[in-house]
Amino acid sequence: MRIAVLGGGQLGRMLALEGIPLGHRFTFLEPSPAPPAGPLGTVVAAPYDDRAALARVADTADVVTCEFENVPAASADFLAARLPVLPPPAALQAAQDRLAEKELFRRLGIPTAPFHPLRTPAQLDAALGTTGLPAVIKTRRFGYDGKGQVVARSAAEAAAALDVLGAELIAESFVRFTRELSILAVRGRDGDRVFYPLTENHHHDGILVASYAPAPRITPALQAAAEAMAERVMERLDYVGVLAIELFEARGRLLANEMAPRVHNSGHWTLDGAATSQFENHVRAVTGLPLAVPRMAGPAAMLNIIGELPDAVEVASVPGAHLHLYDKTPRPGRKLGHVNVTGGDEAAVRATARRVRELLGGESSSLPAAVSRG
Amino acid sequence: MRIAVLGGGQLGRMLALEGIPLGHRFTFLEPSPAPPAGPLGTVVAAPYDDRAALARVADTADVVTCEFENVPAASADFLAARLPVLPPPAALQAAQDRLAEKELFRRLGIPTAPFHPLRTPAQLDAALGTTGLPAVIKTRRFGYDGKGQVVARSAAEAAAALDVLGAELIAESFVRFTRELSILAVRGRDGDRVFYPLTENHHHDGILVASYAPAPRITPALQAAAEAMAERVMERLDYVGVLAIELFEARGRLLANEMAPRVHNSGHWTLDGAATSQFENHVRAVTGLPLAVPRMAGPAAMLNIIGELPDAVEVASVPGAHLHLYDKTPRPGRKLGHVNVTGGDEAAVRATARRVRELLGGESSSLPAAVSRG
Repeated sequence: MRIAVLGGGQLGRMLALEGIPLGHRFTFLEPSPAPPAGPLGTVVAAPYDDRAALARVADTADVVTCEFENVPAASADFLAARLPVLPPPAALQAAQDRLAEKELFRRLGIPTAPFHPLRTPAQLDAALGTTGLPAVIKTRRFGYDGKGQVVARSAAEAAAALDVLGAELIAESFVRFTRELSILAVRGRDGDRVFYPLTENHHHDGILVASYAPAPRITPALQAAAEAMAERVMERLDYVGVLAIELFEARGRLLANEMAPRVHNSGHWTLDGAATSQFENHVRAVTGLPLAVPRMAGPAAMLNIIGELPDAVEVASVPGAHLHLYDKTPRPGRKLGHVNVTGGDEAAVRATARRVRELLGGESSSLPAAVSRG
Repeated sequence: MRIAVLGGGQLGRMLALEGIPLGHRFTFLEPSPAPPAGPLGTVVAAPYDDRAALARVADTADVVTCEFENVPAASADFLAARLPVLPPPAALQAAQDRLAEKELFRRLGIPTAPFHPLRTPAQLDAALGTTGLPAVIKTRRFGYDGKGQVVARSAAEAAAALDVLGAELIAESFVRFTRELSILAVRGRDGDRVFYPLTENHHHDGILVASYAPAPRITPALQAAAEAMAERVMERLDYVGVLAIELFEARGRLLANEMAPRVHNSGHWTLDGAATSQFENHVRAVTGLPLAVPRMAGPAAMLNIIGELPDAVEVASVPGAHLHLYDKTPRPGRKLGHVNVTGGDEAAVRATARRVRELLGGESSSLPAAVSRG
């Protein structure tokens, strides 16, 4: 099949690397020059709202998917009128608006931190009445990697955030969480679904730096609770593909923080740590193949390469380290690749991950030494 | 790095799929149209002896490797005068001439079936005196998948073979072997080497149909003997990259049959059955990265897709089956892809392999039901 991907970044690159062996060809709609996915397919270099480019995508593909959720609704709808867009446009819409996303969670009975919309200073009292202090004030759209959000410790700081961040905001309670987890779920065209084990994620300056899978000390009840959340979202949206939900674990409970209607950085370990990766399962889902139950050979870790490229010889010399580069020009804070770690038990993977962390240096030097802050 | 590959078939395709994540770009010199590796790099569409094309390859690459050993010596030498060609041209030369190959094995003390060159009818007596009957009469060059060879059960049949096959032949004793095995070895630029476990191979009509790894009932002594053979060849040729040696096991001993100076069909299981595939280790070798010791999570099998494409939905629905397609037009006897099988113990892998075999149907229906004929 011919698969068109909205976006041509590293997620598109890895979708193609895993989808080409299944016999598929890829086209990427991507406005930026020399995208990471470029060497793996045809690039339609145009903005996401370019009607001629969208028509070209529709004409040359059998199915459209995305590796980037901030696609204009009109574009997704334009394509969906012509060929299958999976996950469906409604899922992109929900995921690109933090308020819509949280309201969806609430409608589905999925616990979240208390939240309140925030457009004008007049709403501040009501918002902070709901969230308490400190509150996290976020833009509803286009936030990523910790951008577009402020922690307000007082009403004055919240008012200042409103000045800085603009008018379409959401205020949320500041969650004192034990740790951050994510659940990766996949739903097929036939409604079948599979789940990867909960992954423990560590961020620095709002950017994911490390993931450990399965997350240590996960009870079957916690895994089941996370799966049930993903399942409710997927059923409601008639979802097809990989869905990631970022979660806080707080006092033994899970709170949904946000969702991504696509393959997710916290699932990159699946390339080496699972018999079937999130990328292959996403491709299987959107092309109508049966999903593969994601069997793991043992624990795995993922360390992002951020800002600076490591010495490839040093990384490759670490037993159990798997280097994945994205063909991107180094720039501070930019995700340039990742290293997966497999082999041995949890302690061995943890030790190897620490060794890799040292080799990655640069902005990654603040990676947590322990697997969990819990 | 920019890696040029001589040949653009499925082996080049899989080299690129595994080499791109390491940050490399690929160019393929390939005369045939729409080669399987095409979607993964730049194709220089020209014969292997086209000097202008070779110059273009030399100008745009940092290193040259091959996925096809029948490259003219003059072409390999032309390139080697300009940039590293790995494995070295001498290895290509030895591997493309069955007589040179067998003489190399003999010089290195590597056991083979008795053999004798055969150019003219006058040599028939001497040749059959060495080989006995039945004898296998083979062309020295360009044989593959059982083509270019004849089993002669009498002197008259041997004389007839000489008529049919031409003048540059080799006669070999017919080996009554227990089974066919192969050893995959990798040598790095620094002289380091790693080995995959011996693989058991099953052929039908001269075409590989199934591989099982590790080969059942392999003693450490047999594994060590195979590794020693590969090591001697690699040291002698100052080899860099993956080297495959096809072996006969006969009366508990190993005889070297032929070698391939490249990644090999009997190593395709490593894509799903080893932490590091033969393709990644080959790329590591030729680009000067340290090799990865090929850790296996459990037993694995590989089933070739020959002549006809299976129903992808059926194959993908088998737990532990991994589909790899080459983007080739179906044609009788043509290798169109393969299915790797992983998960569980040897009996489970064997059972899944049998199930996949049934789904592959067509010419693959004669796949052996048992793992070993031994």
